[in-house]
Amino acid sequence: MSRTTIADVARAAGVTKATVSHALSGNRPISEETRAKVLAAVDKLGWVPSQSARALANRHANAVAVVLARNPDVIANDSFFPAFIAGVESVLAESETALVLQVVSGREAEERAYRSLANGRADGALLLDLRVDDWRVPFLDELGLPTVLVGAYDQQHPFSCIRTDDAAPIRDIVAHLREAGHERIAHVSGPLDYVHSRARAEAYIDEMHGDELLREGDFTAASGRALTAELLALPERPTAIMYANDTMAIAGLSYARSQGLKIPDDLAISGFDDDHLSAHLSPALTSVSSDPAARGRAAARLLRADILGAQPRTETVDCNVVHLRESTSAQSSAVSTVSRRTP
Amino acid sequence: MSRTTIADVARAAGVTKATVSHALSGNRPISEETRAKVLAAVDKLGWVPSQSARALANRHANAVAVVLARNPDVIANDSFFPAFIAGVESVLAESETALVLQVVSGREAEERAYRSLANGRADGALLLDLRVDDWRVPFLDELGLPTVLVGAYDQQHPFSCIRTDDAAPIRDIVAHLREAGHERIAHVSGPLDYVHSRARAEAYIDEMHGDELLREGDFTAASGRALTAELLALPERPTAIMYANDTMAIAGLSYARSQGLKIPDDLAISGFDDDHLSAHLSPALTSVSSDPAARGRAAARLLRADILGAQPRTETVDCNVVHLRESTSAQSSAVSTVSRRTP
Repeated sequence: MSRTTIADVARAAGVTKATVSHALSGNRPISEETRAKVLAAVDKLGWVPSQSARALANRHANAVAVVLARNPDVIANDSFFPAFIAGVESVLAESETALVLQVVSGREAEERAYRSLANGRADGALLLDLRVDDWRVPFLDELGLPTVLVGAYDQQHPFSCIRTDDAAPIRDIVAHLREAGHERIAHVSGPLDYVHSRARAEAYIDEMHGDELLREGDFTAASGRALTAELLALPERPTAIMYANDTMAIAGLSYARSQGLKIPDDLAISGFDDDHLSAHLSPALTSVSSDPAARGRAAARLLRADILGAQPRTETVDCNVVHLRESTSAQSSAVSTVSRRTP
Repeated sequence: MSRTTIADVARAAGVTKATVSHALSGNRPISEETRAKVLAAVDKLGWVPSQSARALANRHANAVAVVLARNPDVIANDSFFPAFIAGVESVLAESETALVLQVVSGREAEERAYRSLANGRADGALLLDLRVDDWRVPFLDELGLPTVLVGAYDQQHPFSCIRTDDAAPIRDIVAHLREAGHERIAHVSGPLDYVHSRARAEAYIDEMHGDELLREGDFTAASGRALTAELLALPERPTAIMYANDTMAIAGLSYARSQGLKIPDDLAISGFDDDHLSAHLSPALTSVSSDPAARGRAAARLLRADILGAQPRTETVDCNVVHLRESTSAQSSAVSTVSRRTP
């Protein structure tokens, strides 16, 4: 006889698996009628919701988790990640809560990691690097692990979410470059299945009215260099390139210089994420500081509330500030693209 | 009746508490005679080594830990830390092992964190930011938690250790500055109770033959700026300043410029840890790359071996490379201060 699963219970009750999970965990509002149907199905099938039950019983690991399915190098070379973790830790330290940080490769390892977290290793998780239609969202919902999504996730989901306006700073930089006389403006994006990369690329395409020159990078210096070479080899090369992070921008800048181009006279360049040294480069790099520490703090606070049983909610943390610097031929100045909200 | 403790057992057996712990854990070589004495005392007093027993029983948390007693900002703004963690994670990922990262403030919170780790949350710990006579070394020994010391710890200890030669790159930079004609060379160190800060400062003092100009900083930009101001206000100001990290060096460089000094003509400046953007600064910053990722990998491998019962051992990971750049008026070049060993 095959083991009864949550899917069998859902089918018998005529609801989704997520609803079964919510009805049992009490974490989400469910009508009494639905809850009764679910409990009747559970009874009838004799189902033991082992994973959820264990997770509930163990909801005092005093730890929250971040699982990263990226190359571990990202921890060292991405400006976002260390600052985000620092913000998370500053909130966790208040309650002597640990952060479980796990790097995995491959989907199976990632699923095992989340199962082990839900089985008592952690009380909740923060979800970074959100993809369009991210499989982890329904998966974590089914595991019953309190989760906070970090990013502007547009599909339906039952979790708390920290949103950011990724489009506004891109529109601002395009406007600034146009004012400086640029018409041929390229964008080297991050991987387009990331929700933030896509939101930025869409804002760029929208601003360019059909004249877009988009190349999809992967945030590494190598891709910044290769795509810059490709763009500069075009018969009608761009006079400005907007990169999705500072690492790609600096690699592009070095390549352009090696080809005899002067920055910003021959080519204007902008980055994103504002590395703590970008203002000190020569030329100083135009970039967007996004205050990842503030997002880390807000995400950790939301997760703490969720673990204690609060209703999931969405919070917008818009700390994006465009820093116009020499690499786009501006005088050094800061333009706040959105009203700053302290989370 | 008060509960029997490990101290009572140690007293009855005429050995140290650490020896009791080792005799029971089997983690360290102990003579049969000593082990017999300890076991007799355990028997006689009816002692239940709860913590060690639990730790042994749970030695499959499949997690290792790093506890940081520093401001969480260090995770974002220190070039060493994120790269070290990336190296650790690259080894842990092979065995789907998690890293428990906990920031604590105050010694009591730190002790609680280590106790909770030893009670089953982690199979072992990596000890960073080693101090001269570090209280954590005997404390972790008593907890029986496998530990790897990251740094050239000179006191006696029972653990595995990743050593680095902190003195060699300092001697090399002093020699380079002397060759360029500098006589008045200052050093802005890190906190001198850190073993690495002290080793570097001692190498500097040794090289200066009584002419030292040492100021103790704390690795922050603020202290780099304040101590630079102090040094430049001296009646006979230094013509070169060696900083213990790049963050302090860049803050010092900005301050010196704000006072009308030209770098390197009026003041030569060097950093340490070689931030990934330091080579791109203007002037490019002379610094020492120390390959923290290699140290992270080596430390994680040693810890894994220790957890599996290997004898503790000391490994030297000397990846320090001095990068002479424009800020000390050199042509760009790299000088390997020690033979490179791949761990």
